[in-house]
Amino acid sequence: MNFTDTSVNDINAIMNEAWNAFHAYRKLSLKQRADFMRTIAVELENCGDALIQVAMKETNLPEARLRGERARTVFQLNSYAQACEEGTWLEARIDTANPNKVPPKPDIRKMMVPLGPVVVFGASNFPFAYSTAGGDTACAFAAGCPVIIKCHPAHAETSTIVADAIIKAATKCNMPKGIFAHVYGTSFDVGKTLVMHPHTKAVGFTGSYIGGKQLFDWANQRKEPIPVFAEMGSINPVFLLPEKLNSSSKDIASMYAGSITLGVGQFCTNPGLIIGVESEALHTFIHDLGKAIQQTAPGPMLHPGIVKAYKEKKGNALLQEEVHLVAESEIEVKENEGLPAIATASGKAFLNNPVLHQEVFGPYSLVIRCKDIDEMTEVAKHLEGQLTSTLMATDNDVLNNDELVEAVKNICGRFILNGVPTGVEVCLSMHHGGPFPATTDSRFTSVGADGIKRFARPIAFQNWSNSLLPDELKNENPLGIWRTINNLLTKEQVN
Amino acid sequence: MNFTDTSVNDINAIMNEAWNAFHAYRKLSLKQRADFMRTIAVELENCGDALIQVAMKETNLPEARLRGERARTVFQLNSYAQACEEGTWLEARIDTANPNKVPPKPDIRKMMVPLGPVVVFGASNFPFAYSTAGGDTACAFAAGCPVIIKCHPAHAETSTIVADAIIKAATKCNMPKGIFAHVYGTSFDVGKTLVMHPHTKAVGFTGSYIGGKQLFDWANQRKEPIPVFAEMGSINPVFLLPEKLNSSSKDIASMYAGSITLGVGQFCTNPGLIIGVESEALHTFIHDLGKAIQQTAPGPMLHPGIVKAYKEKKGNALLQEEVHLVAESEIEVKENEGLPAIATASGKAFLNNPVLHQEVFGPYSLVIRCKDIDEMTEVAKHLEGQLTSTLMATDNDVLNNDELVEAVKNICGRFILNGVPTGVEVCLSMHHGGPFPATTDSRFTSVGADGIKRFARPIAFQNWSNSLLPDELKNENPLGIWRTINNLLTKEQVN
Repeated sequence: MNFTDTSVNDINAIMNEAWNAFHAYRKLSLKQRADFMRTIAVELENCGDALIQVAMKETNLPEARLRGERARTVFQLNSYAQACEEGTWLEARIDTANPNKVPPKPDIRKMMVPLGPVVVFGASNFPFAYSTAGGDTACAFAAGCPVIIKCHPAHAETSTIVADAIIKAATKCNMPKGIFAHVYGTSFDVGKTLVMHPHTKAVGFTGSYIGGKQLFDWANQRKEPIPVFAEMGSINPVFLLPEKLNSSSKDIASMYAGSITLGVGQFCTNPGLIIGVESEALHTFIHDLGKAIQQTAPGPMLHPGIVKAYKEKKGNALLQEEVHLVAESEIEVKENEGLPAIATASGKAFLNNPVLHQEVFGPYSLVIRCKDIDEMTEVAKHLEGQLTSTLMATDNDVLNNDELVEAVKNICGRFILNGVPTGVEVCLSMHHGGPFPATTDSRFTSVGADGIKRFARPIAFQNWSNSLLPDELKNENPLGIWRTINNLLTKEQVN
Repeated sequence: MNFTDTSVNDINAIMNEAWNAFHAYRKLSLKQRADFMRTIAVELENCGDALIQVAMKETNLPEARLRGERARTVFQLNSYAQACEEGTWLEARIDTANPNKVPPKPDIRKMMVPLGPVVVFGASNFPFAYSTAGGDTACAFAAGCPVIIKCHPAHAETSTIVADAIIKAATKCNMPKGIFAHVYGTSFDVGKTLVMHPHTKAVGFTGSYIGGKQLFDWANQRKEPIPVFAEMGSINPVFLLPEKLNSSSKDIASMYAGSITLGVGQFCTNPGLIIGVESEALHTFIHDLGKAIQQTAPGPMLHPGIVKAYKEKKGNALLQEEVHLVAESEIEVKENEGLPAIATASGKAFLNNPVLHQEVFGPYSLVIRCKDIDEMTEVAKHLEGQLTSTLMATDNDVLNNDELVEAVKNICGRFILNGVPTGVEVCLSMHHGGPFPATTDSRFTSVGADGIKRFARPIAFQNWSNSLLPDELKNENPLGIWRTINNLLTKEQVN
């Protein structure tokens, strides 16, 4: 298949159609939106094995992973559809009139409404779950927004098949023309044209810091700035606390050798930094981790650009002063593969060298040897925003190191105790986000149904008669949703 | 009293203290935060008449208005304190573990945590309610953030008294040192230093477009961009629909003469634009509105800068092609006063001239005569984002003009039917915000307890043992807050 960049003229036409579609789609009921999303899920399954085969060829990802990822994508569509209908995300609030107040208090009712057309940039590392019919798309549809996908060039054929499934679902569900569009682009210009278009009202992105920050800057240079939800990766620090490390260094080494190399290290939540305090136990841990890494096979990475970047960034990290390679995989590596490796450096070296804070996307991790807990706390305080932070700690470790624990908590979106950061559960309590530079907006998640709220804003209706109000806010609560009436959360009618 | 700009060195010291205070304050319970806020409310009342006298002298606002505004400020502090404790804003979500899932699903629990020190810029037009102890400050304290106030130079003495009341409350409640600071500044540099400081994590502002946009741009140019919640005013369009206008033009004229001149037009929600369709009824309306304006006395404005800006902006608006003055107040005007006035222009003139879309802050409104409903719809589609939009309409008017109604809804944060936009009720259902350029972030309100969410972000705890979790997320729900447990909203314990 041959993919050429979508032209500026075509993008203008697409955005105009999306703008018209927005005005039709936002008026559809929550149930109609949810049905559309469920139909996309069905069509995605209907793509069958053919889709998996194409994705395998384009991404080098193994079949089982891709089947799992499609199932996850289907689950996202269905569970966000359920959340869309359930309606808690609308944050419906009703305060009834009080004519006896001076001045009289009017009837005011508030709910979420969609922002407008959303441009989603597909992620190379999640060809299904964070691409064409992925989490951002599902959230935008739930919120009432049309979606324009800029497909990732590394899996354009996969993306085209998924886009066709969405278009089929849109036709089946009588969705307005322009509710969805698929855009190709290898040049910067395509992305810029999409972000700068006046009808674009929000942007979703998962990828590199450079890419995400560029979209954010463009969006803020617009005459009308728009929100950009860019998830830009992270080094996901893991803090090994002394009591825990003393008692379980072997188990931790084995668990982390698996996490570092899972999916050839190509997850945003890959643990790229492990921090311990100099001790016999830390030496044993590093030794065991090194042994396990030596025995872990390299694997093919997503595309040649990623392999190249991994080699360069890892190479550069290893060139830094006081950084020492501990171990590399001893199994033969092919040209398209990423070679697992771990290195080590002192706490002081890490504190003094911002290069060591940068993500090396791939099966690599740096183990920091701090001279004491105070230095470990310093490291935590100097770390940039992260998607996740992990403590490997006993209860005593947590209770005795409050300053460290608070510092770690302050930099992350998800705080894991005695586990690994890889593996992002799709559920309402998930927060996949974090302080800058992990994302451009720490207040929103890109995984879980709360992600719908990224693409909506509140509007208050003042003094409207019941019959003219949206169903969500009518006295009789015809949709049966949770609402806060005169400060009480309830599913009851307004009396 | 003599106020000199706070120096860069002093600002650095203040921000360092605020950063330390943040780490202590965020650990305090919701009840401790709420008690602090309630104590501020008491201290604000304890300032007694002396505060009102100083504010009258500095702002030219009448005594009754200032007493009312202080009472509103006290109500904000108390009602946001109640919301803080009640805890729904924490959006607590719990998904319990499922070890039988493949891979096993860990226990995940999410809640809001504070962003960090918040810089608040006092508003000239609300010396109490949107200044030193105003809505932004109350929301930030509720969220768990220290506050640094940049006081408005036009009421520095008022602000100092209020700041002293906050400091007294902080001492009484044993708040950490640095929880609150008061900064003076007439130069741009003070504002810039505050916004650019690495320890500043969010900004609240109420004022002009130029001021708010500058803060927003600085915040996005930081190495770590931060959210800016700038409420930058609005022209608050009012659409007069035909059936309603035919039946009630006299009442509407009288109602709007009052709204346009209320508080000498110095409200963000002042109706600066009234749009009707050419007709006998519209002529009568304009005539009656003009008559009422002629009989409305000018009033003293907040400070000389505002009087000057009003004269200039009104003068410039009246110089625009096809804009005609309809009426001005015929009552003698003093140098520090704003002269009420209304003008008129055609729909075409408005569509072609962006100058007419700009806010004229003061007792001025422009009446647009559209040739038909289609042109009125065009006007609605071409309007920038607004805090409020109003329809003066019968049920038939609403039902028969869907395209217009949807276009108006899409540009505003609060949508009023048959009322006036002035008067912003402090309640949970209020949305005081709106699409850019009304604010820099349409997703958040600056009035009502939902404003607390501006200064918080979610964090997910994964695999934590019950005893180590924050009280908000513990199995037994010791705080008795609403939480979503395995997708069900409840106040129950986790089983």
